[in-house]
Amino acid sequence: MSRFPADHAGLEILPYDECLRLLGTVPVGRVSFFADGEIVVLPVTHVMDGQAPVFRTARGSKLSAAEGQAVVAFEADAYDEHAQSGWSVLVNGRAYAIYEDQEIRRLSRLGLRPWLASAKHAFWIRIQPASITGRRTPEPDDDLRPGP
Amino acid sequence: MSRFPADHAGLEILPYDECLRLLGTVPVGRVSFFADGEIVVLPVTHVMDGQAPVFRTARGSKLSAAEGQAVVAFEADAYDEHAQSGWSVLVNGRAYAIYEDQEIRRLSRLGLRPWLASAKHAFWIRIQPASITGRRTPEPDDDLRPGP
Repeated sequence: MSRFPADHAGLEILPYDECLRLLGTVPVGRVSFFADGEIVVLPVTHVMDGQAPVFRTARGSKLSAAEGQAVVAFEADAYDEHAQSGWSVLVNGRAYAIYEDQEIRRLSRLGLRPWLASAKHAFWIRIQPASITGRRTPEPDDDLRPGP
Repeated sequence: MSRFPADHAGLEILPYDECLRLLGTVPVGRVSFFADGEIVVLPVTHVMDGQAPVFRTARGSKLSAAEGQAVVAFEADAYDEHAQSGWSVLVNGRAYAIYEDQEIRRLSRLGLRPWLASAKHAFWIRIQPASITGRRTPEPDDDLRPGP
């Protein structure tokens, strides 16, 4: 696998296309936003709609943040505990609730599996990215021998 | 398994002790905080030190947030894609960098595995909780029949 430049902590900085690809490889990401003086982080099942993560939510804080078009973050990661290797991708942008029937029908065909199968009031939310950044642990090499 | 009261979205509200227990069952959580006008969400490997998640980090944004004793969130979750079941726990509080040698020696015995095995400048950070809340998908019942 190719190597990427490393950041100050020794993590490889992923190119944009690789960040986008990785976002689509995991079923769950986390939406984070500021609400009532606290930082909220909530997991959601998502799919990628081009460069935008989309997910469904019940009416509540996640939707409130979206309707206010607040600044939000969306994060996905994967970690292999045995190999001590992993990656993470962070999307910063704004959240929009989607109300157009045609758009909802289109999103409904993207194969999203809801976090809660019985969820009734399922609104669609899109995170419109302003930036997408990612890091991963470097591949093991001679300087970094894992134990047996 | 016992049932807990549900929130407006149909998710069960976990009691405090169960939240604490679940935080200790996964190797990775995510730290979220506000920096330079954006919300940052970064995965970390953590262990629980009583009621406080602790983790290590290189000098950088995670440490900066901690040194400022900023309001932060720490989130952990697990999701079973096949069963469409999962839980999440959110810790809100403040982050403190730990510099006392005796305290660092104590934390070093808690069994934390670093996200990046080769990390050099590993500071310890503690999230001192102001609140710990959690949700999980309800157990399947007659109203919620999963497919084969």
